[in-house]
Amino acid sequence: MTAVTATTDATEPGGARVPPAIGRAQALVRPALEEAVARLSTGLRLPVEYHLGWCDPNGAPTGAPGGKFVRATLALLSAEAAGAPAEVGLPGAVAVELLHNFSLLHDDVIDHDVERRHRPTVWAVYGVGTAVIAGDALLALSHQTLLELPGPGPRAASRALAFATSALIAGEAEDMASETRTDITPDECTAIALGKTAVLLACASSIGVPLAEGDPRLAETLGDFGLNVGLAFQAVDDVLGIWGDPQVTGKPAGSDLRDRKKTLPIVAAMHAGGSASEELQELLELEALDEAQVARAASLVEACGGRDRAESEARRFLEAALEALTSAEVPGPVDAELRAVARFVVDRDA
Amino acid sequence: MTAVTATTDATEPGGARVPPAIGRAQALVRPALEEAVARLSTGLRLPVEYHLGWCDPNGAPTGAPGGKFVRATLALLSAEAAGAPAEVGLPGAVAVELLHNFSLLHDDVIDHDVERRHRPTVWAVYGVGTAVIAGDALLALSHQTLLELPGPGPRAASRALAFATSALIAGEAEDMASETRTDITPDECTAIALGKTAVLLACASSIGVPLAEGDPRLAETLGDFGLNVGLAFQAVDDVLGIWGDPQVTGKPAGSDLRDRKKTLPIVAAMHAGGSASEELQELLELEALDEAQVARAASLVEACGGRDRAESEARRFLEAALEALTSAEVPGPVDAELRAVARFVVDRDA
Repeated sequence: MTAVTATTDATEPGGARVPPAIGRAQALVRPALEEAVARLSTGLRLPVEYHLGWCDPNGAPTGAPGGKFVRATLALLSAEAAGAPAEVGLPGAVAVELLHNFSLLHDDVIDHDVERRHRPTVWAVYGVGTAVIAGDALLALSHQTLLELPGPGPRAASRALAFATSALIAGEAEDMASETRTDITPDECTAIALGKTAVLLACASSIGVPLAEGDPRLAETLGDFGLNVGLAFQAVDDVLGIWGDPQVTGKPAGSDLRDRKKTLPIVAAMHAGGSASEELQELLELEALDEAQVARAASLVEACGGRDRAESEARRFLEAALEALTSAEVPGPVDAELRAVARFVVDRDA
Repeated sequence: MTAVTATTDATEPGGARVPPAIGRAQALVRPALEEAVARLSTGLRLPVEYHLGWCDPNGAPTGAPGGKFVRATLALLSAEAAGAPAEVGLPGAVAVELLHNFSLLHDDVIDHDVERRHRPTVWAVYGVGTAVIAGDALLALSHQTLLELPGPGPRAASRALAFATSALIAGEAEDMASETRTDITPDECTAIALGKTAVLLACASSIGVPLAEGDPRLAETLGDFGLNVGLAFQAVDDVLGIWGDPQVTGKPAGSDLRDRKKTLPIVAAMHAGGSASEELQELLELEALDEAQVARAASLVEACGGRDRAESEARRFLEAALEALTSAEVPGPVDAELRAVARFVVDRDA
């Protein structure tokens, strides 16, 4: 266990026990990701390597593994689920990590977020233009990684990646539009999470199957697994966005309340009705919230059942993910690892 | 001729005679492009349709054709060059137009440009976040357009598009980096133009060949043609950026001098040596330039041979493009249309 723990992300000091599959993925994917990033033009490598946590703003190496590699881990496991060695899923793992990081770079610009993983965001360090183009470069590289490979497997994987990309972008657009809407329902929150988070996890969890030239039905089942893991992941994220430990999440307490994000617990609480729900609505209409008001809003969301709703959705989607696996014919050890990763995603505290 | 002229872009009141191939491309590509854009999520359609010139900021139709469709025209002609009907090149035409517009949307954000084609840019109207994500959506859609098609042709076309995308982004990154450099040489200007403009025109000019399952050597020759058309295009753009008629270009006189752009005529003049060159350098180091200073800088660039240099490069690259065609076995009428489009690109005044 020591070796695996040593390679886990520094952002998870009190995190859940890291599944061995994640440690293995880090060892396999990091060098491949480095090779891909080395293909970027000089001016883009520094901001991208900084974003990935590999170096400080001036390029000095940090020695950090750079992320949890959850998506890459799922991609490798999906190749193994189809009976191939993990290496067959590697281009898919690199592609989904690149795609994920494209979306983080642009999301931070869109949301004006100045901090991510306890560090200033790329646009805050290098400017908006650099963050936009660095994101563009990762998106392009993500597709190139698969399109350069010969054979029908990579072609099917490319198509899956292109579909996930469009859905991801549509999800972000809907999320952005939701910020100015006052009539979002809890079900719409889940629909937005589908595009914003779940589609990419579905792609990650199945992309190794076409690469291994496995059964398309297996890809579908694993996609269903990943979609539910993603929905659970987002529900957990929404809980951490209010009640997460600032020391661990790297965000101020009640961050999502401060930013008036329309997340599931907040929307559910605002739809609950009653005096606590009304008080919450009034608080969230204020120009700016001080610390006491943020704390009050958080306890109102909890009192209105918003936290319970998000936590029970997380459990429900985790169960659905595990249930989906039951119907798939996946070798025992791979099945166990997929389940461990799904549980890890839901049990995390950052 | 009347019918074709009636469909040309309003931004070209005094423009060169529009080749019939462009009119045909507009009629074929516009409906296909509309179909592609209709797949975007609701919140992104409006900014994209506004960007394309199809509607005003509130969505009211403008009746304008939306762009010159130069890239789309080249894509259709490349399919015809390979002996297929233009329709076979249509997905390639749509893909390159989408890719081109992705790059315009992001370039305007990166360069802080508030106006394009006589209209406020998307970020200036709808905000930076919307422009970033609308660009992302067009990039994703561009790749999806080809990846969804079955068969080996579209696969090769997808690869070509992915390569062009990466080169385009690298070119924009280098262009951005060049803004802060004081030691750019005229040759480096051409190298930047290669990535920023020429690679996409090379892709447009050849993408119909794989779609028509034509000879890869023909794709290579047409790519060479397009690369040179692109380099000529950029040199003309650089001349118009200083001496273009504001009424026609939609940009203020001496626009590139005001913005301290490191374009070929400016860089060549700064490298010319002598007193005029030194006076120019001093002018361009000032905090801001008034109208008289812009006019003085423009005449200094001309006196130092910067305009001659760019105009002779434009002619040289046009000749190289036409020369490349000579070695290709392209049906006579298609050959004539390719040459007409190449000349149109160089003779334009906006």
